[in-house]
Amino acid sequence: MTLTVVGSIAFDAVETPSGSRARLLGGSAVHFALASCQFADTRIVGPVGDDFGDEEYAILHRRGVLTEDVEHVPGGRTFFWAGRYHRDINRRDTLQTDLNVFEDFRPKLSQASREADVLFLGNIQPDLQREVRSQCEAARFVAMDSMNLWIDIAHESLLRTIAMVDCLVLNDSELKQLTDEPNLVRAAHGALELGPRVIVAKQGEYGATMITRDGYFGMMAYPTADIVEPTGAGDSFAGGLMGYIASRRGEADDATLRRAIAHGTACASFNVEGFGSERLYELERGEIDARVAALEAMSRF
Amino acid sequence: MTLTVVGSIAFDAVETPSGSRARLLGGSAVHFALASCQFADTRIVGPVGDDFGDEEYAILHRRGVLTEDVEHVPGGRTFFWAGRYHRDINRRDTLQTDLNVFEDFRPKLSQASREADVLFLGNIQPDLQREVRSQCEAARFVAMDSMNLWIDIAHESLLRTIAMVDCLVLNDSELKQLTDEPNLVRAAHGALELGPRVIVAKQGEYGATMITRDGYFGMMAYPTADIVEPTGAGDSFAGGLMGYIASRRGEADDATLRRAIAHGTACASFNVEGFGSERLYELERGEIDARVAALEAMSRF
Repeated sequence: MTLTVVGSIAFDAVETPSGSRARLLGGSAVHFALASCQFADTRIVGPVGDDFGDEEYAILHRRGVLTEDVEHVPGGRTFFWAGRYHRDINRRDTLQTDLNVFEDFRPKLSQASREADVLFLGNIQPDLQREVRSQCEAARFVAMDSMNLWIDIAHESLLRTIAMVDCLVLNDSELKQLTDEPNLVRAAHGALELGPRVIVAKQGEYGATMITRDGYFGMMAYPTADIVEPTGAGDSFAGGLMGYIASRRGEADDATLRRAIAHGTACASFNVEGFGSERLYELERGEIDARVAALEAMSRF
Repeated sequence: MTLTVVGSIAFDAVETPSGSRARLLGGSAVHFALASCQFADTRIVGPVGDDFGDEEYAILHRRGVLTEDVEHVPGGRTFFWAGRYHRDINRRDTLQTDLNVFEDFRPKLSQASREADVLFLGNIQPDLQREVRSQCEAARFVAMDSMNLWIDIAHESLLRTIAMVDCLVLNDSELKQLTDEPNLVRAAHGALELGPRVIVAKQGEYGATMITRDGYFGMMAYPTADIVEPTGAGDSFAGGLMGYIASRRGEADDATLRRAIAHGTACASFNVEGFGSERLYELERGEIDARVAALEAMSRF
């Protein structure tokens, strides 16, 4: 079972009250892949510049992430993001965003990437997401992310993309913005009418909620006292979720989707325990499974 | 098994985008009792003025709420609160607060109220909460609520009260404020060090979390598309929680507390489906049990 993810590959600079890093491997596709690779072979599609080299590839290759579709743009620089987190680590300010090679990115998928069983369209311009979607005709399960920017400036294109996926994964505030509906249940049902059969609302420190036409599943975030830096938590959540689905044969039914969300939640909880996705570099599958079991015990009554 | 609650008894005036009411029976003790009475005999302790009469007593008596300790202050007026809810019903502005008879309230408990098996100290000045606590020596389980006002202006007194209860029920933002700790897990552990063995963090539309020295339990809010008006949701949550505990013999162990939180969550979900606590006036126990079962199905994986 193979998984393709398209999204950003980046260098991040972050400041937190307890420390800072000037150059971390980041980007939505990277955070995603470092989680999904625990469950399924993952191909990553995205552009990098001349500043992206052996050190970064080594991190990905050590986890088995397949990088044939990482596009090197000669003379370009890799996407760069800088942010500062508050004492309340759920709050942050963006200090700098340099799109660099990402500005003119047009995804070119290899045959292997196009044959993916499961596809994740990370948060990129919705026209490009559709281009990728069209190239992956064999995918049995397709999910996508997006953001407030595209809801604002590319609304119609975004709606067309949403109509082409099985599952929409979005922050709950963005889901409410997308549907212009402040109630989450109504917002999710509005989103279901756009085409997907599964809506996953990411709720940050509160967890995640899955809404389908038949029902509802709520998953708390794993309670951790030791949050170091949360960049990429939502991406590693999606990576764990999609990786788990890719690892299971057959239709992604309700029971599979619930366990997938639990695995995504576990991956996100590790992600926030270090800078960038560093905590995932050496993570073992057994640690994820133990945390899923803990989540089960913490939600049972 | 009997339950005593001390808190406000009020008239509320509320405006929402879909309608308004000029005079609703409200107050923390009332919202609480209309939920807890489903599970255990509930005595309500609080002051009212001349404007509080047969109509209001009838609502309480029809549900079996015991009102011998409702103190009528001759010549006084009942506590009054007015608020306006936004289109996002999780946001509101307070338009008016008239303490009236609540300003000089000193709780006077009858012998029957003092003999309560389970006691809830609603959100009142912490000195008064302690007075009530001291009068109820037989109580086997005592919980309390509070608010940002007392955290700000009566901090030391509040800490002394917290040291005298088994369980602290607080909004998560207040818990973080109380302990000056933005991380919920750390905030809850800080609160445990103040004395209680159970911390319940209310998280509004996201649900509730219970933290004890031994563990953690997360409970989603019941997903409802039809929120009419949420005043008193937190109080009816506490009422369902404490009523359920009062209905069970023996120690409030982890399994009992988890089910208590589920029952509180169900009560709160009905509370928001009508103005004030009107949805609870005719509510049947079977409806609560069905919603608890639904919550169980929605959180299982």
